[in-house]
Amino acid sequence: MFGRMLVVDLSKGTTREEAIEPAVVSSYLGGKGLGIYLLDKMSEKGADPLSEGNPLLFLTGPFTGTPFPTSGRFTIVTKSPHTGIFVDSHIGGHFGHTLRKAGYDVIAVTGKAPEPVYLWIDDGSVEIRDAKSFWGKTVDETVDAVRAETDSKAHVAVIGPAGENKVTIANITVDKDSDPWRAGIAGRGGSGAVMGSKNLKAVAVRGTGPVPMKDEKALRARSTELAKAITANPQIHTRRVVGTSSLVEAMSRTGILPTNNFQRGYFTPIYGLTSTNLRFHTKRDVACFNCPIVCGKVLQDDGHDTKVEYESIALLGSNNGIGSIIDVTRAVRICNELGMDSISAGGIVGFAMECKERGLLPDAPSFGDSDGQAALLKDMAFKKGLGELLSDGVRRAAAKIGQGTEDFAIAVKGLELPGYEPRATWGMALAYATSDRGACHQRAWTVLGELDGILPRFKTEGMALKVKMTQDERAAAYSLVVCDFTPYDQDAVYPSLADAAGIDMDPDSYLSVGERIWNHIRLFNIREGGISRKDDTLPHRMFNEPLPMPPRGEDTVTLTKEAFDAMLDEYYEMRKWDKNGIPSPEILKKLGLSD
Amino acid sequence: MFGRMLVVDLSKGTTREEAIEPAVVSSYLGGKGLGIYLLDKMSEKGADPLSEGNPLLFLTGPFTGTPFPTSGRFTIVTKSPHTGIFVDSHIGGHFGHTLRKAGYDVIAVTGKAPEPVYLWIDDGSVEIRDAKSFWGKTVDETVDAVRAETDSKAHVAVIGPAGENKVTIANITVDKDSDPWRAGIAGRGGSGAVMGSKNLKAVAVRGTGPVPMKDEKALRARSTELAKAITANPQIHTRRVVGTSSLVEAMSRTGILPTNNFQRGYFTPIYGLTSTNLRFHTKRDVACFNCPIVCGKVLQDDGHDTKVEYESIALLGSNNGIGSIIDVTRAVRICNELGMDSISAGGIVGFAMECKERGLLPDAPSFGDSDGQAALLKDMAFKKGLGELLSDGVRRAAAKIGQGTEDFAIAVKGLELPGYEPRATWGMALAYATSDRGACHQRAWTVLGELDGILPRFKTEGMALKVKMTQDERAAAYSLVVCDFTPYDQDAVYPSLADAAGIDMDPDSYLSVGERIWNHIRLFNIREGGISRKDDTLPHRMFNEPLPMPPRGEDTVTLTKEAFDAMLDEYYEMRKWDKNGIPSPEILKKLGLSD
Repeated sequence: MFGRMLVVDLSKGTTREEAIEPAVVSSYLGGKGLGIYLLDKMSEKGADPLSEGNPLLFLTGPFTGTPFPTSGRFTIVTKSPHTGIFVDSHIGGHFGHTLRKAGYDVIAVTGKAPEPVYLWIDDGSVEIRDAKSFWGKTVDETVDAVRAETDSKAHVAVIGPAGENKVTIANITVDKDSDPWRAGIAGRGGSGAVMGSKNLKAVAVRGTGPVPMKDEKALRARSTELAKAITANPQIHTRRVVGTSSLVEAMSRTGILPTNNFQRGYFTPIYGLTSTNLRFHTKRDVACFNCPIVCGKVLQDDGHDTKVEYESIALLGSNNGIGSIIDVTRAVRICNELGMDSISAGGIVGFAMECKERGLLPDAPSFGDSDGQAALLKDMAFKKGLGELLSDGVRRAAAKIGQGTEDFAIAVKGLELPGYEPRATWGMALAYATSDRGACHQRAWTVLGELDGILPRFKTEGMALKVKMTQDERAAAYSLVVCDFTPYDQDAVYPSLADAAGIDMDPDSYLSVGERIWNHIRLFNIREGGISRKDDTLPHRMFNEPLPMPPRGEDTVTLTKEAFDAMLDEYYEMRKWDKNGIPSPEILKKLGLSD
Repeated sequence: MFGRMLVVDLSKGTTREEAIEPAVVSSYLGGKGLGIYLLDKMSEKGADPLSEGNPLLFLTGPFTGTPFPTSGRFTIVTKSPHTGIFVDSHIGGHFGHTLRKAGYDVIAVTGKAPEPVYLWIDDGSVEIRDAKSFWGKTVDETVDAVRAETDSKAHVAVIGPAGENKVTIANITVDKDSDPWRAGIAGRGGSGAVMGSKNLKAVAVRGTGPVPMKDEKALRARSTELAKAITANPQIHTRRVVGTSSLVEAMSRTGILPTNNFQRGYFTPIYGLTSTNLRFHTKRDVACFNCPIVCGKVLQDDGHDTKVEYESIALLGSNNGIGSIIDVTRAVRICNELGMDSISAGGIVGFAMECKERGLLPDAPSFGDSDGQAALLKDMAFKKGLGELLSDGVRRAAAKIGQGTEDFAIAVKGLELPGYEPRATWGMALAYATSDRGACHQRAWTVLGELDGILPRFKTEGMALKVKMTQDERAAAYSLVVCDFTPYDQDAVYPSLADAAGIDMDPDSYLSVGERIWNHIRLFNIREGGISRKDDTLPHRMFNEPLPMPPRGEDTVTLTKEAFDAMLDEYYEMRKWDKNGIPSPEILKKLGLSD
């Protein structure tokens, strides 16, 4: 049902098929879970992430391409060149289900091609093709060039110049924003640099076969009901109308919207960045495969279609003092064309702007300088000028610059923070600090829980449990693979998993899969990155500067190290990890990870 | 240029034309200003608002029907049967400019018809026609019936059953929500009951002539530039997309959204009431005459088109514990069909719900009971059952019920509060207390100023000045007449006024007009309503209960009587009113009001 792997050895120029054992699928599902399993198994211990010893994995899950709602996503897993630890990145659009229709559930790319190549997967036939003439092309140009040589409707995962240049925030992009359907991006952690290090410019796929399912009819009937329930939800209506940008004004009103490199959590006036202003400028709505939500909002800058999301508005907008959605669209378009993560890119520009504000880096742009941001983004992709110093992230840049800049290098484990100020949302403080890939909002997202009164605000109570449970649940969900925007009925997952892939699971075993994945990644990160309690923390600013709150910064909020440590201690205890963040033998035994 | 008045004496069944003197127009402009001038001049002192001695005035302004942006509005002025003092109510849509095209700038309706009539104004010819067969019809039915007898595209101001029954929150409605253009409502203060007391069911107008202007070409050129600037503003983009509902989530996040009869200022979860959920359900967008904003959002309930606004969402939604935009749409539809002010109606239902919660009024609906709200609204329009007790407002209802209900009767000078919690926005506390028509959000609206850090929050400093200046400026703007949603360039008003109506004005004289109007209304209210400092206050709850703040009500805010009194003292001083709120001889002399 699920487990058909294509192994591509770029060093040898060979491809072969391999079946994942059913027991592995039962223990890890697909996506993120199967990703850590295979990464651990296939990678050389201690390998440089940009070397041949680091595999690059494209993974679908047992739900990918099935009628289960939001089954259009897939997962990239590798060791991150940006953080030196595990990274998984989940991509919407139409590549995942097409890969399964072409006969493969997973692609494992190993080794390194001597010269630029691309992969062409056409309904079960696989070719490694010459890509020398594509080298240097932007994302959109590459998609077009590959389609011209394969199929005009092929779905194509590509890297842009940033990936070629092994910029450690380079992403992998599927298709282009000007396609009639929704493009997708594996943004975080620099998987694009790994792809670039392998001289792999693109992976194109055409798939017309069936997706194997145990009981398609039953799955289809249940999925129809699920889709109805999803589209009846008012929060989904909002996603339909404005996508993720719905958060912008709420975050700013409540002190959570990063502003001027996380110096405060509100932007005034906010009206140039709100969701309803974004909607005004939206040219069209785009959806992933089999998605009833249609959250993608495409704006235009300079005639180029560009999908704009909350995270980009936060990091390339307010965080850098920029209050125009059109200026944000421009910055996103540059990131997209050159192939860079807009969250990390925005965080890096914000760091440079604060350096400038403090009299360091006189050539950096100032807060609010949209043209300066645009120029710096381009330089980062090509490692030119200041871009050379900055493009590998704020942690490395601060280490080079010194002069106290480490204190405002806003990253956890080297990964720049997403768009939620942790001093204003304490659940996110713990979630960022303990996330498996560095500061991440998608492992446990407590923000609306705190704003809606479901969780306490500015308190530590209950946060550890919520974060731990959500991390486990999300780790399983990202292994199915489904979208995090879906308020799907958890109880519908188990019978659907049986129908989709013949996997029997109940709430306990499902959460166990998530917990197994989470612990397996922790072990990998300890081994490869030396991760321990010292790394499960927040940037210096968060414990040492009070956060000015809206509307005027006259009131402040302080997150003390003591309060944070209390949450972390409780979290370790719930995880059955020791005081240093190392999993105990009992929990590893319970999860079958003792080896 | 401006000042052509039609006087209709319904007692005698006669009509005549009269010219307003140019000196009066220079001192009062049109709309609100001319309204107080004429009301004072034409009404019998101390007359019952529902008697023949109270005139009902329909007033356009010198900008109405001109190319000046948002010139589609007009004004109703009368003595309110709900509050016993002055009321002006401003209506969008297409009646105002059509009236001017028909040859009239003002209609003054006096006396009382012995039997139901309607007025048909057809390009300068005027008829008082029999309306007996229309009596009892809903708003939409009446519009249709009048059009069938006049012109299928006539713009028709009507009352519904509530107005016929002299319910003191009855409104006057222009056209119907199912028209292709935007309908309009004079909601506040019960002008519909005054119309009902005169046995006047409708006023229909057809106008095809030119609107007189001094220099149409110059005004048109400047107006085109103004409209461009308006539509370039991001806040206008938001209005275009979601109308006034843009405020809902921001108000709830900041503790300002009335909830459960102003017991707190946030509603959770808010997602069923947000602007983006409203947009999801919006069937079409409608605009007033000559409006580049297009803020009207038409939803549907039971197949009926219904325009839904922020105030209705606040008062018929969150304030009554109702969290579904479709339930709000239903309640608005009932108010619209029967012809009642949705703000006061919502406030009254909320009062009844709190009575129920406290064990009084066992037959009242509970918070959250949408069906119960719908039934009570119908009963109010027909003064049936509990509706009889409640339909004349919370002040009168509390006086009848006693048992401490006065403490949570949420009104100022008898007018129910609009959708902003005064404990959470102290500028509005002063604005409500000093508004000329009772609790009103449109005389001085400080809400976003406080949230955007332009004004202080939870402080008194600067509020008196801001409220006083805004009241004066708005009084002048409501006399032009233009819409309050337009961020128009103040400097463009003066030359436009010269071009439109040959009136020369500068910033000082313009504000003087506003101040004159404000003081003239104060004198009228003192004489007719015995208004003084004792009335310039807030409901008991506001000074005696701390306001629970979002997200969970664990933090509270308190507005003390002392802080409020400090603002009020400062306000009186700026107005040159004495400690009791009576205008001083100097200010009256300065404004030419000594007589």
